[in-house]
Amino acid sequence: MTRFARVAVIGVGLIGGSFALALKAAKLCGRVVGVGRSQANLESALDCGAIDSIETDPAAAARDADLIMLSAPVAQFPIILSAIGNSLNPGALVTDGGSTKRDVVAAARAALGTKLAQFVPGHPIAGGEESGAGAARADLFRDKRVVLTPLPENSAADVNRIEGLWKSLGARTYRMTPEEHDAVFAAVSHLPHLLAYALVHGIAARDDAARLFGFAAGGFRDFTRIASSHPEMWRDICMANRDRLMSEVDGFSAELSKMRNLLEAGDSAALERLFAEARAARRRWLDGEYEP
Amino acid sequence: MTRFARVAVIGVGLIGGSFALALKAAKLCGRVVGVGRSQANLESALDCGAIDSIETDPAAAARDADLIMLSAPVAQFPIILSAIGNSLNPGALVTDGGSTKRDVVAAARAALGTKLAQFVPGHPIAGGEESGAGAARADLFRDKRVVLTPLPENSAADVNRIEGLWKSLGARTYRMTPEEHDAVFAAVSHLPHLLAYALVHGIAARDDAARLFGFAAGGFRDFTRIASSHPEMWRDICMANRDRLMSEVDGFSAELSKMRNLLEAGDSAALERLFAEARAARRRWLDGEYEP
Repeated sequence: MTRFARVAVIGVGLIGGSFALALKAAKLCGRVVGVGRSQANLESALDCGAIDSIETDPAAAARDADLIMLSAPVAQFPIILSAIGNSLNPGALVTDGGSTKRDVVAAARAALGTKLAQFVPGHPIAGGEESGAGAARADLFRDKRVVLTPLPENSAADVNRIEGLWKSLGARTYRMTPEEHDAVFAAVSHLPHLLAYALVHGIAARDDAARLFGFAAGGFRDFTRIASSHPEMWRDICMANRDRLMSEVDGFSAELSKMRNLLEAGDSAALERLFAEARAARRRWLDGEYEP
Repeated sequence: MTRFARVAVIGVGLIGGSFALALKAAKLCGRVVGVGRSQANLESALDCGAIDSIETDPAAAARDADLIMLSAPVAQFPIILSAIGNSLNPGALVTDGGSTKRDVVAAARAALGTKLAQFVPGHPIAGGEESGAGAARADLFRDKRVVLTPLPENSAADVNRIEGLWKSLGARTYRMTPEEHDAVFAAVSHLPHLLAYALVHGIAARDDAARLFGFAAGGFRDFTRIASSHPEMWRDICMANRDRLMSEVDGFSAELSKMRNLLEAGDSAALERLFAEARAARRRWLDGEYEP
Protein backbone atom coordinates (compact mmCIF):
# COMPACT_ATOMS: atom_id res chain seq x y z
CA MET A 1 0.00 0.00 0.00
CA THR A 2 1.27 3.48 -0.91
CA ARG A 3 2.02 5.76 1.98
CA PHE A 4 0.77 9.35 1.74
CA ALA A 5 3.38 11.75 3.11
CA ARG A 6 1.01 14.71 3.44
CA VAL A 7 -2.70 14.39 3.94
CA ALA A 8 -5.27 17.19 4.08
CA VAL A 9 -8.60 16.49 5.76
CA ILE A 10 -11.17 19.16 4.97
CA GLY A 11 -13.98 18.87 7.51
CA VAL A 12 -12.60 17.07 10.56
CA GLY A 13 -15.78 15.57 12.02
CA LEU A 14 -16.60 11.96 12.87
CA ILE A 15 -15.69 10.72 9.37
CA GLY A 16 -12.72 13.00 8.64
CA GLY A 17 -11.26 12.64 12.12
CA SER A 18 -11.65 8.86 12.09
CA PHE A 19 -10.12 8.69 8.60
CA ALA A 20 -7.03 10.56 9.88
CA LEU A 21 -6.75 8.43 13.03
CA ALA A 22 -7.15 5.24 10.99
CA LEU A 23 -4.47 6.29 8.46
CA LYS A 24 -2.10 7.02 11.31
CA ALA A 25 -2.85 3.78 13.12
CA ALA A 26 -2.17 1.89 9.88
CA LYS A 27 1.02 3.92 9.36
CA LEU A 28 -0.24 4.96 5.94
CA CYS A 29 0.45 8.66 6.27
CA GLY A 30 2.95 11.25 7.40
CA ARG A 31 1.61 14.61 8.55
CA VAL A 32 -2.10 15.42 8.50
CA VAL A 33 -3.37 18.96 8.21
CA GLY A 34 -6.98 19.65 9.19
CA VAL A 35 -9.23 22.36 7.76
CA GLY A 36 -12.59 23.35 9.23
CA ARG A 37 -14.97 26.08 10.29
CA SER A 38 -14.86 25.50 14.03
CA GLN A 39 -11.62 26.33 15.80
CA ALA A 40 -12.76 24.42 18.92
CA ASN A 41 -13.43 21.28 16.88
CA LEU A 42 -10.04 21.53 15.11
CA GLU A 43 -8.30 21.89 18.47
CA SER A 44 -10.09 18.80 19.70
CA ALA A 45 -8.82 16.99 16.56
CA LEU A 46 -5.31 18.21 17.38
CA ASP A 47 -5.63 17.07 21.00
CA CYS A 48 -6.70 13.55 20.06
CA GLY A 49 -3.89 13.26 17.52
CA ALA A 50 -6.08 13.02 14.42
CA ILE A 51 -4.36 16.02 12.85
CA ASP A 52 -0.89 17.53 13.30
CA SER A 53 -1.69 21.09 12.31
CA ILE A 54 -4.58 23.42 11.58
CA GLU A 55 -5.02 25.37 8.38
CA THR A 56 -7.87 27.79 7.71
CA ASP A 57 -7.48 27.99 3.94
CA PRO A 58 -8.41 24.83 1.99
CA ALA A 59 -6.26 25.91 -0.98
CA ALA A 60 -3.18 26.25 1.24
CA ALA A 61 -3.86 22.86 2.85
CA ALA A 62 -4.26 21.22 -0.56
CA ARG A 63 -1.09 22.75 -2.03
CA ASP A 64 1.37 20.33 -0.43
CA ALA A 65 -0.96 17.38 0.03
CA ASP A 66 -0.75 14.13 -1.88
CA LEU A 67 -4.08 12.93 -0.48
CA ILE A 68 -7.06 15.16 0.21
CA MET A 69 -10.15 13.92 2.03
CA LEU A 70 -13.30 16.01 1.73
CA SER A 71 -15.49 15.26 4.73
CA ALA A 72 -17.48 18.44 5.24
CA PRO A 73 -21.28 18.57 4.79
CA VAL A 74 -21.89 18.10 1.06
CA ALA A 75 -23.40 21.55 0.41
CA GLN A 76 -19.92 23.00 1.03
CA PHE A 77 -18.28 20.87 -1.64
CA PRO A 78 -18.68 23.32 -4.57
CA ILE A 79 -16.80 26.06 -2.68
CA ILE A 80 -14.16 23.69 -1.30
CA LEU A 81 -13.55 22.04 -4.67
CA SER A 82 -13.22 25.41 -6.39
CA ALA A 83 -10.79 26.52 -3.72
CA ILE A 84 -8.51 23.49 -3.99
CA GLY A 85 -8.75 23.06 -7.77
CA ASN A 86 -5.95 25.48 -8.60
CA SER A 87 -3.51 24.39 -5.93
CA LEU A 88 -3.81 20.64 -6.50
CA ASN A 89 -0.49 18.84 -7.18
CA PRO A 90 -0.40 16.75 -10.38
CA GLY A 91 0.24 13.58 -8.39
CA ALA A 92 -2.31 14.26 -5.64
CA LEU A 93 -5.47 12.21 -5.16
CA VAL A 94 -8.75 13.62 -3.85
CA THR A 95 -11.51 11.51 -2.35
CA ASP A 96 -14.52 12.25 -0.15
CA GLY A 97 -16.87 10.90 2.48
CA GLY A 98 -20.07 12.51 1.24
CA SER A 99 -23.32 10.60 1.77
CA THR A 100 -24.69 11.62 -1.64
CA LYS A 101 -22.80 11.18 -4.88
CA ARG A 102 -24.60 12.73 -7.85
CA ASP A 103 -24.26 16.26 -6.42
CA VAL A 104 -20.66 15.67 -5.34
CA VAL A 105 -19.69 14.43 -8.80
CA ALA A 106 -21.48 17.38 -10.43
CA ALA A 107 -19.63 19.80 -8.13
CA ALA A 108 -16.30 18.16 -8.98
CA ARG A 109 -17.04 18.34 -12.72
CA ALA A 110 -17.86 22.02 -12.39
CA ALA A 111 -14.84 22.90 -10.25
CA LEU A 112 -11.90 20.68 -11.11
CA GLY A 113 -11.61 21.07 -14.89
CA THR A 114 -8.62 19.17 -16.23
CA LYS A 115 -7.87 17.84 -12.74
CA LEU A 116 -11.18 15.97 -12.52
CA ALA A 117 -9.46 12.61 -13.02
CA GLN A 118 -7.67 13.08 -9.68
CA PHE A 119 -10.97 12.90 -7.78
CA VAL A 120 -12.22 9.41 -6.84
CA PRO A 121 -15.60 9.81 -5.08
CA GLY A 122 -16.49 7.56 -2.16
CA HIS A 123 -18.93 7.06 0.69
CA PRO A 124 -17.94 5.21 3.87
CA ILE A 125 -21.12 3.75 5.45
CA ALA A 126 -19.96 4.38 8.97
CA GLY A 127 -21.79 7.39 10.31
CA GLY A 128 -23.84 7.64 13.43
CA GLU A 129 -25.66 10.15 15.54
CA GLU A 130 -22.38 11.24 17.07
CA SER A 131 -20.56 14.04 15.33
CA GLY A 132 -17.41 16.12 15.62
CA ALA A 133 -13.74 15.22 15.99
CA GLY A 134 -14.33 14.25 19.61
CA ALA A 135 -16.31 11.20 18.43
CA ALA A 136 -13.63 10.06 15.96
CA ARG A 137 -11.93 6.67 16.41
CA ALA A 138 -9.26 4.79 14.49
CA ASP A 139 -11.40 1.67 14.07
CA LEU A 140 -14.56 3.37 12.78
CA PHE A 141 -14.25 1.80 9.31
CA ARG A 142 -13.34 -1.72 10.41
CA ASP A 143 -15.79 -4.19 8.77
CA LYS A 144 -17.81 -1.25 7.44
CA ARG A 145 -18.78 -0.77 3.80
CA VAL A 146 -17.32 1.88 1.55
CA VAL A 147 -19.02 2.57 -1.77
CA LEU A 148 -16.84 4.08 -4.48
CA THR A 149 -18.49 5.74 -7.47
CA PRO A 150 -15.52 6.13 -9.83
CA LEU A 151 -15.66 8.57 -12.74
CA PRO A 152 -15.02 7.52 -16.35
CA GLU A 153 -12.11 9.98 -16.19
CA ASN A 154 -10.38 8.18 -13.28
CA SER A 155 -7.46 5.92 -14.11
CA ALA A 156 -7.84 2.32 -12.97
CA ALA A 157 -4.66 2.76 -10.95
CA ASP A 158 -6.04 5.73 -9.00
CA VAL A 159 -9.32 3.97 -8.23
CA ASN A 160 -7.35 0.94 -7.07
CA ARG A 161 -5.21 3.11 -4.80
CA ILE A 162 -8.25 4.62 -3.07
CA GLU A 163 -9.89 1.22 -2.87
CA GLY A 164 -6.73 -0.31 -1.43
CA LEU A 165 -6.50 2.50 1.09
CA TRP A 166 -10.00 1.78 2.45
CA LYS A 167 -9.26 -1.94 2.55
CA SER A 168 -6.14 -1.21 4.56
CA LEU A 169 -8.38 0.55 7.08
CA GLY A 170 -10.45 -2.62 7.42
CA ALA A 171 -13.36 -1.63 5.18
CA ARG A 172 -15.14 -3.68 2.51
CA THR A 173 -15.37 -1.78 -0.74
CA TYR A 174 -18.00 -1.79 -3.48
CA ARG A 175 -18.38 0.12 -6.72
CA MET A 176 -21.49 1.58 -8.28
CA THR A 177 -22.55 4.59 -10.32
CA PRO A 178 -23.49 7.84 -8.53
CA GLU A 179 -27.10 7.29 -9.72
CA GLU A 180 -27.24 3.76 -8.28
CA HIS A 181 -25.67 4.97 -5.05
CA ASP A 182 -28.19 7.78 -4.51
CA ALA A 183 -31.14 5.51 -5.28
CA VAL A 184 -30.02 2.84 -2.81
CA PHE A 185 -29.25 5.23 0.04
CA ALA A 186 -32.43 7.27 -0.43
CA ALA A 187 -34.31 4.07 0.45
CA VAL A 188 -32.24 2.55 3.26
CA SER A 189 -30.71 5.61 4.89
CA HIS A 190 -32.15 8.99 3.89
CA LEU A 191 -35.81 7.98 4.18
CA PRO A 192 -35.41 6.38 7.65
CA HIS A 193 -33.66 9.54 8.87
CA LEU A 194 -36.54 11.68 7.59
CA LEU A 195 -39.10 9.38 9.25
CA ALA A 196 -37.29 9.44 12.58
CA TYR A 197 -36.98 13.23 12.52
CA ALA A 198 -40.69 13.48 11.59
CA LEU A 199 -41.81 11.24 14.45
CA VAL A 200 -39.81 13.08 17.11
CA HIS A 201 -40.69 16.50 15.71
CA GLY A 202 -44.38 15.64 15.58
CA ILE A 203 -44.41 14.54 19.22
CA ALA A 204 -42.31 17.48 20.41
CA ALA A 205 -44.79 19.91 18.83
CA ARG A 206 -47.76 18.57 20.80
CA ASP A 207 -49.27 20.03 23.95
CA ASP A 208 -48.85 16.72 25.75
CA ALA A 209 -45.26 16.21 24.54
CA ALA A 210 -43.92 15.83 28.08
CA ARG A 211 -46.39 13.07 28.93
CA LEU A 212 -45.77 11.29 25.62
CA PHE A 213 -41.96 11.38 25.88
CA GLY A 214 -42.36 10.43 29.53
CA PHE A 215 -43.64 6.99 28.59
CA ALA A 216 -41.49 6.38 25.51
CA ALA A 217 -39.26 3.35 26.05
CA GLY A 218 -36.61 1.20 24.41
CA GLY A 219 -38.34 0.64 21.08
CA PHE A 220 -38.81 4.39 20.68
CA ARG A 221 -35.20 5.04 21.66
CA ASP A 222 -33.79 2.75 18.96
CA PHE A 223 -36.31 3.83 16.33
CA THR A 224 -35.42 7.49 16.86
CA ARG A 225 -31.67 7.17 17.41
CA ILE A 226 -30.98 8.61 13.94
CA ALA A 227 -33.12 11.66 14.79
CA SER A 228 -30.12 12.71 16.88
CA SER A 229 -28.00 12.96 13.73
CA HIS A 230 -26.30 16.19 12.73
CA PRO A 231 -29.01 18.57 11.39
CA GLU A 232 -26.81 20.46 8.91
CA MET A 233 -25.26 17.30 7.49
CA TRP A 234 -28.69 15.72 7.03
CA ARG A 235 -30.20 18.90 5.62
CA ASP A 236 -27.50 18.79 2.93
CA ILE A 237 -27.99 15.08 2.23
CA CYS A 238 -31.78 15.39 1.97
CA MET A 239 -31.54 18.44 -0.27
CA ALA A 240 -28.84 16.94 -2.51
CA ASN A 241 -30.88 13.79 -3.02
CA ARG A 242 -34.32 15.33 -2.81
CA ASP A 243 -35.77 13.96 -6.05
CA ARG A 244 -34.96 10.40 -4.99
CA LEU A 245 -35.97 11.05 -1.40
CA MET A 246 -39.35 12.52 -2.40
CA SER A 247 -40.08 9.45 -4.45
CA GLU A 248 -39.15 7.26 -1.45
CA VAL A 249 -41.47 9.35 0.74
CA ASP A 250 -44.25 8.74 -1.79
CA GLY A 251 -43.63 4.99 -1.83
CA PHE A 252 -43.57 4.86 1.96
CA SER A 253 -46.75 6.92 2.24
CA ALA A 254 -48.48 4.46 -0.09
CA GLU A 255 -47.34 1.53 2.09
CA LEU A 256 -48.50 3.30 5.25
CA SER A 257 -51.81 4.13 3.67
CA LYS A 258 -52.25 0.44 2.79
CA MET A 259 -51.73 -0.41 6.45
CA ARG A 260 -54.17 2.27 7.56
CA ASN A 261 -56.76 0.75 5.23
CA LEU A 262 -56.23 -2.65 6.84
CA LEU A 263 -56.75 -1.08 10.27
CA GLU A 264 -59.89 0.69 9.12
CA ALA A 265 -61.28 -2.47 7.52
CA GLY A 266 -60.42 -4.50 10.62
CA ASP A 267 -58.50 -6.92 8.40
CA SER A 268 -56.36 -8.41 11.14
CA ALA A 269 -55.30 -11.44 9.07
CA ALA A 270 -53.79 -9.26 6.32
CA LEU A 271 -52.13 -7.02 8.91
CA GLU A 272 -50.54 -9.98 10.66
CA ARG A 273 -49.34 -11.38 7.32
CA LEU A 274 -47.72 -8.06 6.50
CA PHE A 275 -46.02 -7.90 9.92
CA ALA A 276 -44.83 -11.49 9.54
CA GLU A 277 -43.40 -10.80 6.06
CA ALA A 278 -41.55 -7.76 7.38
CA ARG A 279 -40.13 -9.72 10.32
CA ALA A 280 -39.05 -12.57 8.06
CA ALA A 281 -37.33 -10.18 5.65
CA ARG A 282 -35.48 -8.48 8.50
CA ARG A 283 -34.47 -11.90 9.81
CA ARG A 284 -33.00 -12.79 6.40
CA TRP A 285 -31.17 -9.48 6.36
CA LEU A 286 -29.69 -10.03 9.85
CA ASP A 287 -28.71 -13.54 8.78
CA GLY A 288 -26.63 -12.05 5.98
CA GLU A 289 -28.71 -13.38 3.11
CA TYR A 290 -28.57 -9.98 1.42
CA GLU A 291 -24.81 -9.41 1.42
CA PRO A 292 -24.05 -7.29 -1.64
CA MET B 1 -45.16 -7.52 50.60
CA THR B 2 -47.76 -10.29 50.46
CA ARG B 3 -46.53 -13.59 49.20
CA PHE B 4 -48.72 -15.41 46.66
CA ALA B 5 -48.78 -19.14 47.37
CA ARG B 6 -50.17 -20.17 43.99
CA VAL B 7 -49.69 -18.17 40.83
CA ALA B 8 -51.17 -18.88 37.40
CA VAL B 9 -49.48 -17.32 34.38
CA ILE B 10 -51.68 -17.51 31.29
CA GLY B 11 -49.48 -16.93 28.25
CA VAL B 12 -45.89 -17.71 29.23
CA GLY B 13 -43.96 -15.56 26.76
CA LEU B 14 -41.34 -12.90 27.37
CA ILE B 15 -43.57 -10.94 29.78
CA GLY B 16 -45.32 -13.88 31.50
CA GLY B 17 -42.14 -15.92 31.81
CA SER B 18 -40.16 -12.98 33.15
CA PHE B 19 -42.94 -12.15 35.60
CA ALA B 20 -42.77 -15.69 36.99
CA LEU B 21 -38.97 -15.70 37.16
CA ALA B 22 -38.97 -12.29 38.86
CA LEU B 23 -41.57 -13.37 41.44
CA LYS B 24 -39.50 -16.43 42.25
CA ALA B 25 -36.24 -14.47 42.46
CA ALA B 26 -37.95 -12.05 44.88
CA LYS B 27 -39.37 -15.01 46.84
CA LEU B 28 -42.84 -13.58 46.41
CA CYS B 29 -44.53 -16.76 45.26
CA GLY B 30 -44.92 -20.43 45.88
CA ARG B 31 -45.81 -22.65 42.93
CA VAL B 32 -46.40 -21.24 39.46
CA VAL B 33 -48.60 -22.98 36.93
CA GLY B 34 -48.25 -21.99 33.27
CA VAL B 35 -50.99 -22.09 30.64
CA GLY B 36 -50.39 -21.65 26.94
CA ARG B 37 -51.08 -22.80 23.40
CA SER B 38 -47.61 -24.06 22.58
CA GLN B 39 -46.44 -27.19 24.38
CA ALA B 40 -42.84 -26.58 23.29
CA ASN B 41 -42.88 -23.08 24.72
CA LEU B 42 -44.39 -24.29 28.03
CA GLU B 43 -41.70 -26.96 28.28
CA SER B 44 -39.06 -24.32 27.73
CA ALA B 45 -40.68 -22.31 30.57
CA LEU B 46 -40.54 -25.41 32.74
CA ASP B 47 -36.89 -26.01 31.84
CA CYS B 48 -35.81 -22.50 32.78
CA GLY B 49 -37.69 -22.70 36.06
CA ALA B 50 -40.25 -19.98 35.29
CA ILE B 51 -43.13 -22.38 35.93
CA ASP B 52 -43.46 -25.52 38.05
CA SER B 53 -46.23 -27.21 36.13
CA ILE B 54 -48.20 -27.03 32.92
CA GLU B 55 -51.96 -26.77 32.70
CA THR B 56 -53.94 -26.69 29.46
CA ASP B 57 -57.20 -25.39 30.89
CA PRO B 58 -57.16 -21.75 32.09
CA ALA B 59 -60.17 -22.39 34.36
CA ALA B 60 -58.38 -25.24 36.11
CA ALA B 61 -55.22 -23.15 36.53
CA ALA B 62 -57.22 -20.26 37.97
CA ARG B 63 -59.17 -22.40 40.42
CA ASP B 64 -56.46 -22.70 43.07
CA ALA B 65 -54.53 -19.53 42.25
CA ASP B 66 -54.38 -16.46 44.45
CA LEU B 67 -52.66 -14.44 41.70
CA ILE B 68 -53.38 -14.76 37.99
CA MET B 69 -51.28 -12.99 35.38
CA LEU B 70 -52.78 -12.69 31.89
CA SER B 71 -49.92 -12.29 29.43
CA ALA B 72 -51.29 -13.74 26.21
CA PRO B 73 -51.85 -11.59 23.09
CA VAL B 74 -54.77 -9.29 23.95
CA ALA B 75 -57.22 -10.68 21.39
CA GLN B 76 -57.37 -13.86 23.49
CA PHE B 77 -58.41 -12.04 26.65
CA PRO B 78 -62.21 -12.31 26.16
CA ILE B 79 -62.02 -16.11 25.96
CA ILE B 80 -59.51 -16.42 28.77
CA LEU B 81 -61.42 -14.07 31.07
CA SER B 82 -64.69 -15.94 30.41
CA ALA B 83 -62.95 -19.20 31.16
CA ILE B 84 -61.47 -18.12 34.48
CA GLY B 85 -64.43 -16.00 35.65
CA ASN B 86 -66.33 -18.88 37.21
CA SER B 87 -63.43 -20.58 38.92
CA LEU B 88 -61.89 -17.47 40.48
CA ASN B 89 -61.40 -17.67 44.28
CA PRO B 90 -62.94 -14.79 46.24
CA GLY B 91 -59.52 -13.72 47.56
CA ALA B 92 -57.67 -14.08 44.24
CA LEU B 93 -56.27 -11.12 42.32
CA VAL B 94 -56.04 -10.96 38.53
CA THR B 95 -53.73 -8.62 36.64
CA ASP B 96 -52.38 -8.50 33.11
CA GLY B 97 -49.52 -7.44 30.88
CA GLY B 98 -51.54 -6.33 27.87
CA SER B 99 -50.18 -3.43 25.79
CA THR B 100 -53.65 -1.95 25.27
CA LYS B 101 -56.06 -1.22 28.08
CA ARG B 102 -59.48 -0.06 26.81
CA ASP B 103 -60.15 -3.41 25.11
CA VAL B 104 -58.81 -5.40 28.06
CA VAL B 105 -61.01 -3.51 30.50
CA ALA B 106 -64.04 -3.96 28.23
CA ALA B 107 -63.35 -7.70 28.00
CA ALA B 108 -63.06 -7.93 31.80
CA ARG B 109 -66.32 -6.01 32.27
CA ALA B 110 -68.06 -8.37 29.88
CA ALA B 111 -66.64 -11.57 31.35
CA LEU B 112 -66.07 -11.16 35.08
CA GLY B 113 -69.46 -9.93 36.34
CA THR B 114 -69.44 -9.57 40.10
CA LYS B 115 -65.77 -10.56 40.22
CA LEU B 116 -64.68 -7.53 38.18
CA ALA B 117 -63.23 -5.81 41.25
CA GLN B 118 -60.62 -8.58 41.51
CA PHE B 119 -59.03 -7.52 38.21
CA VAL B 120 -56.39 -4.76 38.38
CA PRO B 121 -55.26 -4.00 34.79
CA GLY B 122 -51.61 -3.21 34.11
CA HIS B 123 -49.03 -2.78 31.37
CA PRO B 124 -45.33 -3.38 32.01
CA ILE B 125 -43.32 -1.30 29.47
CA ALA B 126 -40.66 -3.92 29.07
CA GLY B 127 -41.20 -5.69 25.79
CA GLY B 128 -38.77 -6.14 22.99
CA GLU B 129 -38.41 -7.88 19.69
CA GLU B 130 -37.61 -11.12 21.49
CA SER B 131 -40.51 -13.34 22.36
CA GLY B 132 -41.28 -16.67 23.99
CA ALA B 133 -40.37 -18.14 27.38
CA GLY B 134 -36.81 -18.72 26.17
CA ALA B 135 -36.23 -14.95 26.20
CA ALA B 136 -37.59 -14.49 29.74
CA ARG B 137 -35.34 -13.16 32.49
CA ALA B 138 -35.85 -12.38 36.17
CA ASP B 139 -34.60 -8.80 35.87
CA LEU B 140 -36.71 -7.76 32.86
CA PHE B 141 -38.77 -5.29 34.91
CA ARG B 142 -35.94 -3.72 36.87
CA ASP B 143 -36.06 0.10 36.39
CA LYS B 144 -38.83 -0.34 33.82
CA ARG B 145 -42.18 1.42 33.94
CA VAL B 146 -45.45 -0.29 34.72
CA VAL B 147 -48.67 1.58 34.03
CA LEU B 148 -51.70 0.52 36.07
CA THR B 149 -55.18 1.51 34.89
CA PRO B 150 -57.27 0.70 37.97
CA LEU B 151 -61.04 0.29 37.70
CA PRO B 152 -63.49 2.29 39.83
CA GLU B 153 -64.57 -1.11 41.15
CA ASN B 154 -61.09 -2.01 42.49
CA SER B 155 -60.47 -1.59 46.19
CA ALA B 156 -57.59 0.71 47.08
CA ALA B 157 -56.01 -2.19 48.94
CA ASP B 158 -56.02 -4.46 45.87
CA VAL B 159 -54.52 -1.77 43.62
CA ASN B 160 -51.85 -1.15 46.24
CA ARG B 161 -51.06 -4.87 46.40
CA ILE B 162 -50.52 -5.07 42.62
CA GLU B 163 -48.55 -1.84 42.65
CA GLY B 164 -46.41 -3.06 45.54
CA LEU B 165 -45.80 -6.31 43.71
CA TRP B 166 -44.39 -4.53 40.66
CA LYS B 167 -42.27 -2.28 42.86
CA SER B 168 -40.86 -5.37 44.55
CA LEU B 169 -39.78 -6.54 41.10
CA GLY B 170 -37.84 -3.30 40.61
CA ALA B 171 -40.37 -1.48 38.44
CA ARG B 172 -41.57 2.12 38.67
CA THR B 173 -45.35 2.30 38.68
CA TYR B 174 -47.75 4.92 37.33
CA ARG B 175 -51.52 5.18 37.20
CA MET B 176 -53.71 6.49 34.42
CA THR B 177 -57.10 5.78 32.86
CA PRO B 178 -57.37 3.17 30.10
CA GLU B 179 -58.19 6.02 27.67
CA GLU B 180 -55.10 8.00 28.61
CA HIS B 181 -52.98 4.87 28.40
CA ASP B 182 -54.12 3.96 24.89
CA ALA B 183 -53.64 7.52 23.63
CA VAL B 184 -50.09 7.75 24.97
CA PHE B 185 -48.96 4.37 23.67
CA ALA B 186 -50.56 4.82 20.25
CA ALA B 187 -48.16 7.75 19.78
CA VAL B 188 -44.90 6.49 21.32
CA SER B 189 -45.13 2.74 20.76
CA HIS B 190 -47.85 1.52 18.39
CA LEU B 191 -47.17 4.09 15.64
CA PRO B 192 -43.38 3.50 15.60
CA HIS B 193 -43.99 -0.24 15.30
CA LEU B 194 -46.32 0.32 12.34
CA LEU B 195 -43.76 2.63 10.67
CA ALA B 196 -40.92 0.15 11.12
CA TYR B 197 -43.01 -2.71 9.74
CA ALA B 198 -44.06 -0.49 6.80
CA LEU B 199 -40.48 0.47 5.94
CA VAL B 200 -39.17 -3.09 5.97
CA HIS B 201 -42.21 -4.47 4.18
CA GLY B 202 -41.97 -1.81 1.49
CA ILE B 203 -38.32 -2.59 0.81
CA ALA B 204 -38.83 -6.37 0.91
CA ALA B 205 -41.55 -6.09 -1.74
CA ARG B 206 -39.27 -4.39 -4.28
CA ASP B 207 -37.44 -6.03 -7.16
CA ASP B 208 -34.13 -4.63 -5.93
CA ALA B 209 -34.76 -5.67 -2.30
CA ALA B 210 -31.52 -7.66 -2.13
CA ARG B 211 -29.41 -4.71 -3.26
CA LEU B 212 -31.23 -2.32 -0.92
CA PHE B 213 -30.91 -4.54 2.16
CA GLY B 214 -27.34 -5.25 1.09
CA PHE B 215 -26.33 -1.66 1.83
CA ALA B 216 -28.53 -1.04 4.87
CA ALA B 217 -26.36 -0.30 7.90
CA GLY B 218 -26.49 0.56 11.59
CA GLY B 219 -29.07 3.35 11.41
CA PHE B 220 -31.43 1.06 9.51
CA ARG B 221 -30.83 -1.76 11.96
CA ASP B 222 -31.83 0.30 15.00
CA PHE B 223 -34.71 2.03 13.21
CA THR B 224 -36.21 -1.33 12.20
CA ARG B 225 -35.45 -3.33 15.34
CA ILE B 226 -39.10 -3.21 16.37
CA ALA B 227 -40.11 -4.65 12.97
CA SER B 228 -38.81 -7.94 14.39
CA SER B 229 -41.54 -7.88 17.04
CA HIS B 230 -44.07 -10.68 17.38
CA PRO B 231 -46.57 -10.35 14.49
CA GLU B 232 -49.60 -11.81 16.29
CA MET B 233 -49.04 -9.75 19.43
CA TRP B 234 -48.69 -6.57 17.37
CA ARG B 235 -51.66 -7.42 15.16
CA ASP B 236 -53.76 -7.61 18.34
CA ILE B 237 -52.37 -4.37 19.75
CA CYS B 238 -52.90 -2.45 16.51
CA MET B 239 -56.41 -3.78 16.09
CA ALA B 240 -57.39 -3.18 19.72
CA ASN B 241 -56.19 0.42 19.52
CA ARG B 242 -56.98 1.07 15.90
CA ASP B 243 -59.01 4.26 16.29
CA ARG B 244 -56.18 5.92 18.18
CA LEU B 245 -53.55 4.41 15.92
CA MET B 246 -55.27 5.60 12.75
CA SER B 247 -55.38 9.10 14.11
CA GLU B 248 -51.64 8.87 14.92
CA VAL B 249 -51.01 7.65 11.34
CA ASP B 250 -52.91 10.69 10.07
CA GLY B 251 -50.91 13.07 12.24
CA PHE B 252 -47.64 11.48 11.17
CA SER B 253 -48.63 11.59 7.49
CA ALA B 254 -49.31 15.32 7.84
CA GLU B 255 -45.87 15.85 9.42
CA LEU B 256 -44.20 13.80 6.68
CA SER B 257 -46.09 15.68 4.01
CA LYS B 258 -44.85 18.96 5.53
CA MET B 259 -41.29 17.69 5.19
CA ARG B 260 -41.89 16.59 1.63
CA ASN B 261 -43.12 20.10 0.84
CA LEU B 262 -39.91 21.56 2.27
CA LEU B 263 -37.90 19.20 0.07
CA GLU B 264 -39.93 20.13 -2.99
CA ALA B 265 -39.62 23.85 -2.28
CA GLY B 266 -35.90 23.48 -1.64
CA ASP B 267 -36.39 25.17 1.74
CA SER B 268 -33.22 23.90 3.35
CA ALA B 269 -33.30 26.42 6.21
CA ALA B 270 -36.73 25.24 7.39
CA LEU B 271 -35.69 21.60 7.00
CA GLU B 272 -32.56 22.13 9.08
CA ARG B 273 -34.59 23.96 11.75
CA LEU B 274 -37.00 21.03 11.91
CA PHE B 275 -34.15 18.50 12.21
CA ALA B 276 -32.50 20.62 14.89
CA GLU B 277 -35.73 20.88 16.88
CA ALA B 278 -36.19 17.11 16.71
CA ARG B 279 -32.63 16.48 17.83
CA ALA B 280 -32.97 18.95 20.71
CA ALA B 281 -36.23 17.34 21.87
CA ARG B 282 -34.67 13.88 21.76
CA ARG B 283 -31.68 15.22 23.72
CA ARG B 284 -34.02 16.58 26.42
CA TRP B 285 -35.77 13.23 26.52
CA LEU B 286 -32.49 11.31 26.92
CA ASP B 287 -31.46 13.78 29.61
CA GLY B 288 -34.53 12.79 31.59
CA GLU B 289 -36.34 16.13 31.31
CA TYR B 290 -39.58 14.36 30.48
CA GLU B 291 -39.74 11.93 33.38
CA PRO B 292 -43.44 11.36 34.09
